[in-house]
Amino acid sequence: MIFKELIRKKRSGEKLSKEEIEFVVNSYTFGVTPDYQMAAFLMAIYFQGLDYEETLALTESMLKSGKTIKLNINGIAVDKHSTGGIGDKVSLIIAPVLAEMGFKAPLLAGRALGFTGGTIDKLESTGMKVELTDAEITDVVKKFGFSISAQTEKIAPADKKIYALRDATSTVESIPLIVSSILSKKLSVNTKAIVFDVKVGSGAFMKTIDEATKLAEGLVKVSKLYGKKAGALITEMNQPLGRYAGNGLEVKESIDALSGDISKDLLEVTSSLVGVLFELTGYGSFEDGKKKATEIILSGKAVERFIRWIEYLGGVPSVKVAEKKMEVRAPIFGYITHINGEELGYLIIELGGGRRKALDKIDYSVGLRFFKKIGDYVEEGEPIGEIYYSKGEPEKFVGKFLSAYTISEKEKVTAPTLVKKKII
Amino acid sequence: MIFKELIRKKRSGEKLSKEEIEFVVNSYTFGVTPDYQMAAFLMAIYFQGLDYEETLALTESMLKSGKTIKLNINGIAVDKHSTGGIGDKVSLIIAPVLAEMGFKAPLLAGRALGFTGGTIDKLESTGMKVELTDAEITDVVKKFGFSISAQTEKIAPADKKIYALRDATSTVESIPLIVSSILSKKLSVNTKAIVFDVKVGSGAFMKTIDEATKLAEGLVKVSKLYGKKAGALITEMNQPLGRYAGNGLEVKESIDALSGDISKDLLEVTSSLVGVLFELTGYGSFEDGKKKATEIILSGKAVERFIRWIEYLGGVPSVKVAEKKMEVRAPIFGYITHINGEELGYLIIELGGGRRKALDKIDYSVGLRFFKKIGDYVEEGEPIGEIYYSKGEPEKFVGKFLSAYTISEKEKVTAPTLVKKKII
Repeated sequence: MIFKELIRKKRSGEKLSKEEIEFVVNSYTFGVTPDYQMAAFLMAIYFQGLDYEETLALTESMLKSGKTIKLNINGIAVDKHSTGGIGDKVSLIIAPVLAEMGFKAPLLAGRALGFTGGTIDKLESTGMKVELTDAEITDVVKKFGFSISAQTEKIAPADKKIYALRDATSTVESIPLIVSSILSKKLSVNTKAIVFDVKVGSGAFMKTIDEATKLAEGLVKVSKLYGKKAGALITEMNQPLGRYAGNGLEVKESIDALSGDISKDLLEVTSSLVGVLFELTGYGSFEDGKKKATEIILSGKAVERFIRWIEYLGGVPSVKVAEKKMEVRAPIFGYITHINGEELGYLIIELGGGRRKALDKIDYSVGLRFFKKIGDYVEEGEPIGEIYYSKGEPEKFVGKFLSAYTISEKEKVTAPTLVKKKII
Repeated sequence: MIFKELIRKKRSGEKLSKEEIEFVVNSYTFGVTPDYQMAAFLMAIYFQGLDYEETLALTESMLKSGKTIKLNINGIAVDKHSTGGIGDKVSLIIAPVLAEMGFKAPLLAGRALGFTGGTIDKLESTGMKVELTDAEITDVVKKFGFSISAQTEKIAPADKKIYALRDATSTVESIPLIVSSILSKKLSVNTKAIVFDVKVGSGAFMKTIDEATKLAEGLVKVSKLYGKKAGALITEMNQPLGRYAGNGLEVKESIDALSGDISKDLLEVTSSLVGVLFELTGYGSFEDGKKKATEIILSGKAVERFIRWIEYLGGVPSVKVAEKKMEVRAPIFGYITHINGEELGYLIIELGGGRRKALDKIDYSVGLRFFKKIGDYVEEGEPIGEIYYSKGEPEKFVGKFLSAYTISEKEKVTAPTLVKKKII
């Protein structure tokens, strides 16, 4: 096969065969095809797209470039993936809850990407071990019913190489490329069903419902073509999820949540995702799952499991948070009409709680607390949030925090719907 | 400026400023921007295009990457460019004719590209010197009123580097990229007016009138924005132009043509191009120019000038052609309805008269002769062409020649219009 001819084919909107896509991935991964040809090919995909069969072929080729994880676990193994947001600690809560219900939940997670947080960074704030071998994952799942560990370098190396090129060539924002990148890692674990939490809004990568729907449909359809049960929810990310954003603060919040002290939004999103897994596995209806998850969370039953799990892997559940705090007060009275989640994400990075470059050290103790959300009424001078910081000028941080909020004296808005769509 | 952001801008259909395009060309030419980013940028242009101002900026940036030619010539300097075809020896005829009229015609020309021939290769069949310094061009133009010499490596090196990348990444077929590539070389000579002969049909790069019109409009509009008088004709290339195709054979045909023995199609196209230059320079009307050119050609006045010019540069005008010939006869009676010019172009390459790779040696003596054209009626067994060859199996060549011709017993077609459009 001639790579240049495959670029021309995709550029002209023709469909590529499974063999052709395998050739693309293999020849690029093995260094036969140069970066510049792959870059042109990726840009052609950006414009012409890939249908679900092509996306599956791309996903499987990248999947095969690395190792897959075959876990020897009895019971119904399920998985959950979020496209990323601000304050998104759902994985930390849903995994022990699913275990409490009798599911097995061997989750693989990533680190912070851009302005959004990463589950693995959050867990590392406890000092626990996050890089596990297959045998260790199996052992942990057998003991606790769930596991959250880091994706290793050995999974889908082709995706890693292609992602770096996409990042340098402005071809990240392509739905089929995003789908195949996510699935090349997610499909590497032999779970029975997967639920995708596709975030939409100012604090997510997908800014519109339309984009989020396309991504969710792609993830679900291609997972099904691969032979896995799959469903997705499109959920609110125009503002942070829950009460805190920041690595250690979110572990602290997760322990509170699992003890029954949980914010309404976090409870709604987490329990709805469990509902989808009920429906997918035939364990019960969506409503059954949602109800059961809510009961478990509010009862505080699952928190022990979570704490023992952290300790088993060498972590300290009572994470230290920054001692320096600065309150953020409303400059005027009115309704909060808009929050720019992306700006808050960048503020966390500025506090030291995220990465600008891949090797940056993270300050796990910093972050943000949110007292008020979209739709809330605030008096002038009323606290709307708090900044946990270690160094730097707190006034500057407060300014940035406030610039992410829009408060209107006249316009009254209602709180946004948390779960916007279910795609099964 | 961040290159990746410029890719994103063009990818999203935004207009780039002159400074941004200069940055793209300079950073790529100086090796600061890697091939893979430029490849993605070029593919984004393939899909989103460039408007005339952007195309001018790209052209000028590539132009500035090399040297320009300032000739000290009295009189009205004019230029002519063809997008390439089969049997296109117009430059060899028009240049001495323009000189005969009192114009100065310092033409720069290229070598064979793909399935089409190259003016410089044709001239080299005489053994003449084709690579001239600026001083030599000035001297030759002063003596003969015209010059045809090779574009040197020093002209628009950025175009050379970008073209090689386009060739490897299937981004050649983009009108603004083709326009800027042609003009970055054409605008390097300080002539007053230029006429573009945009070929359309099976033996040209542009297969449809629509594509050819876009290319012609781009060439004319961008040249005018640059400050040069410019016009274009869209001319027939569904079949070879004139009686022969092949390097030495075309020099021979040009000498015949300049002596007054010229085929109707070659006369029509050549004289019409002169007409455009009359109109552009205010020398007279389009019809005046056409009429005057026809008179000069049929009178045989310009042939001496052409022959002396070849000899002055060390060439032998009486080119040797292949001694082995094979006639091609019509397998059935009927009308010639279609000729595939591209196939004939590849047949010439197979005979040894063109290049598969840049460094291939050319056999100047081989080529094709055409007795019949589209619209002509042929009897079964009547000669329609002749193959001049040096080695290989003549029967195979005859088969390929015939496969490029469609002869229909029923359908009668008329000869195609030679000059399809004039764009000024």
